[in-house]
Amino acid sequence: MLKIAIIGATGYTGLELLRILAKHPEVEIVSVTSRQEAGKKVREVFPFESYFAELVFEEPDVSKIAPRVDLVFLCVPHGAAAETARAFLEAGVKVIDLSADFRLKDAAVYESWYKTKHPCPELLSKAVYGLPEIYREEIKGASLVANPGCYPTASILPLVPLLKEKLIEPQSIIIDAKSGVSGAGRSAKLRLIFCEVNEDFCAYNVAVHRHTPEIEQELNQASGFSFHINFTTHLVPMSRGILATSYAEVKEGVTERDLREALKSAYAREPFIKILDEGLYPQTAHVKGTNLCLIGLKFDPRTGRAIIISAIDNLVKGASGQAVQNMNLMAGFPETLGLEKRPLFP
Amino acid sequence: MLKIAIIGATGYTGLELLRILAKHPEVEIVSVTSRQEAGKKVREVFPFESYFAELVFEEPDVSKIAPRVDLVFLCVPHGAAAETARAFLEAGVKVIDLSADFRLKDAAVYESWYKTKHPCPELLSKAVYGLPEIYREEIKGASLVANPGCYPTASILPLVPLLKEKLIEPQSIIIDAKSGVSGAGRSAKLRLIFCEVNEDFCAYNVAVHRHTPEIEQELNQASGFSFHINFTTHLVPMSRGILATSYAEVKEGVTERDLREALKSAYAREPFIKILDEGLYPQTAHVKGTNLCLIGLKFDPRTGRAIIISAIDNLVKGASGQAVQNMNLMAGFPETLGLEKRPLFP
Amino acid sequence: MLKIAIIGATGYTGLELLRILAKHPEVEIVSVTSRQEAGKKVREVFPFESYFAELVFEEPDVSKIAPRVDLVFLCVPHGAAAETARAFLEAGVKVIDLSADFRLKDAAVYESWYKTKHPCPELLSKAVYGLPEIYREEIKGASLVANPGCYPTASILPLVPLLKEKLIEPQSIIIDAKSGVSGAGRSAKLRLIFCEVNEDFCAYNVAVHRHTPEIEQELNQASGFSFHINFTTHLVPMSRGILATSYAEVKEGVTERDLREALKSAYAREPFIKILDEGLYPQTAHVKGTNLCLIGLKFDPRTGRAIIISAIDNLVKGASGQAVQNMNLMAGFPETLGLEKRPLFP
Amino acid sequence: MLKIAIIGATGYTGLELLRILAKHPEVEIVSVTSRQEAGKKVREVFPFESYFAELVFEEPDVSKIAPRVDLVFLCVPHGAAAETARAFLEAGVKVIDLSADFRLKDAAVYESWYKTKHPCPELLSKAVYGLPEIYREEIKGASLVANPGCYPTASILPLVPLLKEKLIEPQSIIIDAKSGVSGAGRSAKLRLIFCEVNEDFCAYNVAVHRHTPEIEQELNQASGFSFHINFTTHLVPMSRGILATSYAEVKEGVTERDLREALKSAYAREPFIKILDEGLYPQTAHVKGTNLCLIGLKFDPRTGRAIIISAIDNLVKGASGQAVQNMNLMAGFPETLGLEKRPLFP
Repeated sequence: MLKIAIIGATGYTGLELLRILAKHPEVEIVSVTSRQEAGKKVREVFPFESYFAELVFEEPDVSKIAPRVDLVFLCVPHGAAAETARAFLEAGVKVIDLSADFRLKDAAVYESWYKTKHPCPELLSKAVYGLPEIYREEIKGASLVANPGCYPTASILPLVPLLKEKLIEPQSIIIDAKSGVSGAGRSAKLRLIFCEVNEDFCAYNVAVHRHTPEIEQELNQASGFSFHINFTTHLVPMSRGILATSYAEVKEGVTERDLREALKSAYAREPFIKILDEGLYPQTAHVKGTNLCLIGLKFDPRTGRAIIISAIDNLVKGASGQAVQNMNLMAGFPETLGLEKRPLFP
Repeated sequence: MLKIAIIGATGYTGLELLRILAKHPEVEIVSVTSRQEAGKKVREVFPFESYFAELVFEEPDVSKIAPRVDLVFLCVPHGAAAETARAFLEAGVKVIDLSADFRLKDAAVYESWYKTKHPCPELLSKAVYGLPEIYREEIKGASLVANPGCYPTASILPLVPLLKEKLIEPQSIIIDAKSGVSGAGRSAKLRLIFCEVNEDFCAYNVAVHRHTPEIEQELNQASGFSFHINFTTHLVPMSRGILATSYAEVKEGVTERDLREALKSAYAREPFIKILDEGLYPQTAHVKGTNLCLIGLKFDPRTGRAIIISAIDNLVKGASGQAVQNMNLMAGFPETLGLEKRPLFP
Repeated sequence: MLKIAIIGATGYTGLELLRILAKHPEVEIVSVTSRQEAGKKVREVFPFESYFAELVFEEPDVSKIAPRVDLVFLCVPHGAAAETARAFLEAGVKVIDLSADFRLKDAAVYESWYKTKHPCPELLSKAVYGLPEIYREEIKGASLVANPGCYPTASILPLVPLLKEKLIEPQSIIIDAKSGVSGAGRSAKLRLIFCEVNEDFCAYNVAVHRHTPEIEQELNQASGFSFHINFTTHLVPMSRGILATSYAEVKEGVTERDLREALKSAYAREPFIKILDEGLYPQTAHVKGTNLCLIGLKFDPRTGRAIIISAIDNLVKGASGQAVQNMNLMAGFPETLGLEKRPLFP
Repeated sequence: MLKIAIIGATGYTGLELLRILAKHPEVEIVSVTSRQEAGKKVREVFPFESYFAELVFEEPDVSKIAPRVDLVFLCVPHGAAAETARAFLEAGVKVIDLSADFRLKDAAVYESWYKTKHPCPELLSKAVYGLPEIYREEIKGASLVANPGCYPTASILPLVPLLKEKLIEPQSIIIDAKSGVSGAGRSAKLRLIFCEVNEDFCAYNVAVHRHTPEIEQELNQASGFSFHINFTTHLVPMSRGILATSYAEVKEGVTERDLREALKSAYAREPFIKILDEGLYPQTAHVKGTNLCLIGLKFDPRTGRAIIISAIDNLVKGASGQAVQNMNLMAGFPETLGLEKRPLFP
C-alpha cells in the first residue's frame, strides 16, 4: 500500500482526492492537514465523509508527516506550496503539487503573472509537468510533479497534436473557456454566494488569467517556437465542468478529416481521451465525475478556421483525478486505477 | 390607444410581449392567437396571467383580426410568418415579425440557410431590419419590421461602430456566444428537459447556426464589403440571457481607448446601450428583464486582438423588448415607453 | 414627493427597495446608507444600478438624514434596528423596520428567541405589525411599522381566515416551509456559496427558527387563544420564492368548499392575494418579482386534514414589496402603487 | 458471472442501472431493450456510454432474452411491467420490477389508485417488497421482487422502527416530501423543460399521489393496524435527491433520545442507513450518487411532535441502487457489492 498525505484537504480538490483515493485499492490515506481545522475530525467539516473514517485534520507539520508517508498531494495556495514541496522532497517524500508553483519552467514568467518572487526556483528544473498524455515517461521517474491547471488541461490536450503535425497556425489560436463554479475554490467570498452566481453568465480576468502562460508554454513547446494566444475565461452557473472552445486557422489544404485523424492517432491508446465523430460535440455533463477529456471539432470552410471543443470535469481530469493518474504512474500502478470513465448523469 | 394582436402567443416571446405590453400605457391587446390553444383562456395556459385578463386565444384568422387592430406581432415559426405578414399588410395592418423571414435581404441566402423557398420574396425590399440603434429612421416609417434575432442583436451592436470606424479587421472576427435555455423556445423536446440541461454546458449547431448570415449581413453593411465570420453558440444552464464574447484583430495603432470611445460616441444618446468602463465586463444577471445591452472590452497587446463582450436578455432586447421598442418608434411613442432598465436581481 | 431613506442598503432587501422605489411615481430616494460602503457610489457596489443614479452610500447618521426625509426603511440587523428606529421617531420621521425588532408584542418572547435583551421595549406598544391584509387601518395611522418576516407572511395569510372562521383545529397546525437562498441574505458565508447550495435540498433551524413566535403570535390572535405550532424551514436551490405547505385538522363537517370560500371571502377585495380554484396549486415561479400571495388548498377526506399551500416572492411580498405597500398606506397613496402583479417568467 | 438484462433501458433508472452494473464485478449485462430505440447502439442514445460498450438496444422479446439471462430488471411503466414479469418468471428468470405493479399486496388498492385492472393479481402473493432493511430474508429467496418507489423508500425507512417500538402515534403521521426532477422520468413533457422547472418550487399531485398506499401498506404492517397518512410531494429544481420531512405525535413520556436510539438500534448493522447525531440533519447533496439513506430527527417539546428528516438519492437508493442491493441478496453476493457510499460532492 502506498502511504499518502493530503496537505490542505478542506478545499474541493482535497475533498475530491479523498473521494477518489477512498476507492483506490493500493493507497492508504495516512494524513490530512488543515491549519484552520486542525484537531477536528474530517466528518466535522464534511459530514458525509464521517461514515467512513475517523481521520483527524492535523497541522501541516512536515517533520511529523514525512516519516509516515511515501507521497504527498499539495492542495495549498501557490507560494505556500513551493516551500512545503521542498521540505517534503528533502525528507525523501514524493510530491504532487496541485498549485501553480512548479508549472512554469521560467521563474521570470511566474513572477510576472503571479506578482511574487518564486520561492524555490532551483526546483523548477526538477519538476515534471504532470500531463500524462504528453509527459508520461518523465512522470514515471519524477519525484516532483506539477499538476496542470484545470483550464490548461482542457486547452492543451486538443491543440498539441494539431500543432505538432503543423495543421494549424499557432498565432491564430483563440481559446474561449467556460468553467463551473467549483473552479473558484471553496471559500467564503461574496462573489461566489449562490444568488450572485445563479442565473448569471459572465467573463472574468479577461486577458489577464494566470493560466495563460501555462497554456502558452506547452503550445510553444509543441510547435517549436514562441507565440501568444488569446485566452478568455467565463463562469457557468453549475458546480463542475470546463468546456474550451478553441479557434485556429487551418493550414492550406488541411481538411477536417486530417484534423480529426491527427487527434485520433495521437490519442489512440489513451484511456482517458475520446475523439468524437463528425457532428458530435462534447458536453460537460458527459464527463461529470470522470477523468475523461472529450474532444470534438469542426472545420468551417467559409472562414478557413477550425473550431475545436474539449470538455473535462475540472475537479477530476482538471485537478485531483489527474493527480491520481500521475500518482499511479509514479508508483508503478496501472494508470487508470481508481479513476472513473462513466459520468454521474443526470 | 394602439390596438395590437399577438399572433402565436403561447411561446416565450409571445408571453414576454404580454408581460411588457400589460404595463404599456398606450397599448391595448385586442387579440392573442394560438392554433393549439384556441378557445382556451390565456389563464388556462399561463395561470399567473389569469389574475389580469379574460383574454381568450383565438385562431390566427387574419380576416377576423385585421379589422380590429393597428399592428400585429408575429411570434410564429419562420415560413409561416411570411404569409401571415403579407395578409396583414394587405389588410392595412402594420407588422413586426419576430421570425427570421424578413431579416435577410437576399432570398437566396435565406434559402441556403433555412433550406426552404422564401414564401414572399417580393416583400423583402419593403422590410426594415428592426435594430433601432442602426435603422431608427427607417423603422419610424416602416409598415413591416423584421425583428432581429437574439444572437444577432448581441453580436451586431458592439461590432458595428468598430467596423464603421475601421478600427478592427473584418475577416478576423470570431463571435463565441452563450445563451440561456429560453432561447430554444417553449416546446416539449427531450433535449430541453431539466435533467438534460442542468449542470451541463455545451456548444450546438457549430458552424451552421442560422443566425450567422444575419450577423454577416449587418457587419458587411457596416464595413462596406463582404466577408465571413466564425460564430459559435453554446447553451448555458439558466433561463435568460445571452453573452457574446467577440474577438477581432485591431488595426495598427489603435488603442483600447480608441475602441471604447468609438462605442461611447456611437451610442452616447442610446437609452438602452451602456458601454462599461475599463476593467468592467457585462454579466447577464445585470440585464435580466431589461431592454439593455451592456458592452465591455479589452485590448490584449500581446496578440493585437480586442475582446469585446456584450450581454442582453434574450427575451427582451433579444426579442420582445426590442419589438416593443420598434413598435414605439412606428407608433410615434417615446422610444423607451414600457421598457425596463433595471434588472430583477437576484 | 415623499422623501425616503434606506438604512442599510447593500443587502438584498435594500437593493429590492431601490428596484421597486425607482419606479414609484411619488417617492424620492434621498439617502442610502452603509457603514461598510460609505463614500462609495451605489454603482460601485451594484454595477447595474449605476445606469440611473449617482447616489452615494453615506454613514447611517440619524442627525444628518432625519432632517431630509419623511420616512425611513430600516434594513439593518435586529438589535441595531430598534435603536435606529427610536432615533428617527424622535426626530419626527416615520419608520418601516424590516428587522424583527418590533414584530413580537411581548419583549420576553423576543428575548427568549433572539437571545438578547430588547433594546426599546417601550416602543413595542406603538409598533403596528405591517401585514396590510390584517392591520390595514392601524398601518395607515402608524409612525412605526414592523414589517413582517418572509416566512410569517407566507404562513399567516392563508391560515388567519380559517382560524377566524373556526374551520380548523389550531393545535393541529404544522407549517412545512421552503425558501430560496436570497432569504439567507447577502453575506459571504461558506454555507451559502454556489457549490454548497446547488443541487442540494435540506432543512435548517429545525424546531428553533425565530419566525416561529411571530407566526404563533398572529395565529393566536386570530383564533383568540394561545397554542403552539410546528414550523420547519428548508433551503431550495433557487434565488427567490417561498412556498409554505400547511397542514391542519378540519373541524367536523367542514368541506373543502367551506375552506376555499372562507379564504375567497376574506380576501375578495385584496389586490395582492389570489385564491386558486380547486385542483390548482401555487408555484413560486408564478410570483417572482411580484407582491402577490397565491393560495391553493385541498381537503383530504382520508385523514380529515386540509393541505393549504401558499407562495410569495420572499424579497417582495416577504420583505421590500410589503414594506412599500405599508409605505403607500402610511402616506395615503394608492396601496398598489409601484408594485407588480405579473411575474418575470421564465 | 450473473447474466442480466435491463428491460426498458432508455430512461433514467435504466441508465442508472447501466452505470452501477458496469462497475459490478459479478454481473454481465447481456441485453438492454427499448421498443423505441431497438437496433440503435446504446451510445447513439447516451453518447457517454459509447466509450465502453457496443451494446445494441433490442426489442423486449422475452423468448429471445430469457434463455440468455439469469435475472432481469424491469424499467417499464406499470401495467406493462406485470405481464413482462410473468413471462420471464415462466421462463425461469428472476425478476426485479422497478414499476409499481407488485408493490401493493391488495389488487383492489392497486386498481383504485392506478385506475386500471391489475394484469397479474395471481403473482401478488409471490412478490416480495424489496426493501432489504425490512424484508432481507424474504428477498434472498424471492424470484419476483417489487422494487420500492423512491418516495416510499425515503418515507418508510425512518418511520418503521418508530412504529414498531410504538413511540409515535400512527394516525398523526404527515410526510412532506420533496424530490429532484429526475423522479419525473426521462420524457419530453412541456412541464419538465428547463425553463418551466428552473427557479420554481411547487407541490404536485396533492393528496392523490400513487405512492401513498404503498407507504401506508408498510407503515400499517409495522404498526399492526390500519390507518391513513398525509403525504405531499414537491418538485425541487435539482436533478437528484429526495428529502422527506415527517411529523408525528410522540407518545407520552418518549424523549428525543428514545426516538434516536430506536432508529440506531434498528439499523445498527445496516450498511446503507446512517442515523445522524443530535442537531444534524440530512442534505440531499450528501447522498448524491450513493445508496445511502440519512436520517436526522428532532423532538419539539412545545408541540409534542417529532420531526423526522430523511434523504436519499432517488435514482440510487430510491430505484436502481436498491434494485442492485436486491439483486446482490438474490444472487448471494455481498449486499454492498458495486454500491457507493460516498457522494459526488459538489
